[in-house]
Amino acid sequence: MISESASGILYMIPLPVADGVIDTLSPAVAAHTEHIRHYFVENVRTARRFLRRLHAALVIDDITFSLIDKHHGPDLALLRTWLAEGKQVGVMSEAGCPGIADPGSILVSEAHRVGARVVPLSGPSSLLLALMASGLNGQSFAFNGYLPVKEPARGKALKEYEDRSAKENQTQIFIETPYRNNHMLQDFIRHLRPATRLCIAMDVTGPCEEIATHTVADWKKLSVSLEKTPAVFLFLV
Amino acid sequence: MISESASGILYMIPLPVADGVIDTLSPAVAAHTEHIRHYFVENVRTARRFLRRLHAALVIDDITFSLIDKHHGPDLALLRTWLAEGKQVGVMSEAGCPGIADPGSILVSEAHRVGARVVPLSGPSSLLLALMASGLNGQSFAFNGYLPVKEPARGKALKEYEDRSAKENQTQIFIETPYRNNHMLQDFIRHLRPATRLCIAMDVTGPCEEIATHTVADWKKLSVSLEKTPAVFLFLV
Repeated sequence: MISESASGILYMIPLPVADGVIDTLSPAVAAHTEHIRHYFVENVRTARRFLRRLHAALVIDDITFSLIDKHHGPDLALLRTWLAEGKQVGVMSEAGCPGIADPGSILVSEAHRVGARVVPLSGPSSLLLALMASGLNGQSFAFNGYLPVKEPARGKALKEYEDRSAKENQTQIFIETPYRNNHMLQDFIRHLRPATRLCIAMDVTGPCEEIATHTVADWKKLSVSLEKTPAVFLFLV
Repeated sequence: MISESASGILYMIPLPVADGVIDTLSPAVAAHTEHIRHYFVENVRTARRFLRRLHAALVIDDITFSLIDKHHGPDLALLRTWLAEGKQVGVMSEAGCPGIADPGSILVSEAHRVGARVVPLSGPSSLLLALMASGLNGQSFAFNGYLPVKEPARGKALKEYEDRSAKENQTQIFIETPYRNNHMLQDFIRHLRPATRLCIAMDVTGPCEEIATHTVADWKKLSVSLEKTPAVFLFLV
């Protein structure tokens, strides 16, 4: 379709969402990581452990890892060099699909700019799995990342997302750091309409996976205490 | 977390996005479909072929398929019966992840209502894979399904989505029927700002996969003709 220049390929490589649960990955992940020797990773320790788990015979010291630094961003000059040399380059985030809910898209954008091919490999995404199992609208949805931490911005944002959900029949998806799960639920109960349906998907694909959808009014009555596990929050008016 | 009643389990089971490319599925799909004998499916022929491909020894005649009828919806009474009887029930759409960009969420919603567990299995989603490989913002994005078919509604909707993308740094994602791919590209070129970045992801995971991101101005200069393959369109201002 489009003429390309840099002959390298950038592979977007998913990791398990729940620690060590590798039967959620597609076989394509093991097939490609057997050969890739150049990686951009969010966490070097996680990446090494993951590759050792997939390939017992792999010599990890032959592999170069470049850290996606949260403050300085990834080393784009190194990416350009690798792609110009025709190398296969992998991108791995801490968990789940790289480029989703993380800053990995900067690398992809640069790969497109120099005309390299970008190949996404199939694997688990907690956002998508939560949406599939929520019973909420999967024909129109938005992922909004984190809510503002402080009031009144937090409540105001929630009400705006709820208005949009009502107007457009659009499922609204959020994440939160695990230790704030209970605060998040209380804020949803405080700010959202009683009839709004709220899904909380906890430890998706993990041993304590629990995905429940109730109205906000019913969540209030249940007065549950959420575990401090990674969770996805979704609602639809 | 929540007390449950119906003892059955509803499994959300992905199919390949590109026909027959089963190395995009997680091993969990093969493991569960070996035992499930009750399915809700969008297309019975596709479902049978898929199961035969995964399990050569499976006796397909022992399996009950209930069609998710596009006009009358799925048979929710049958779903309740199966779940009350403690059966494992699978949901499969025509391709990709059920419950995403299809009406499968009605079944999930009913399963939650009767207190059954819902378990999503990991597999390919053309929307998510396209987003991973687009280089566009994966920290805020919205899937909007199909645009209105006719003008002026189509152009008006596009401009509204573009305004939202500019204001919220939100990637906007759309699908279109393959025979309209070229119309879609021309409409994007006509209505969107020249600097807006547009990604077109064609035949994701398939033999002719091609994922390209350019500014609208550059797409105009390239004057490409798109194949009539399934495509995902994404843009970010």
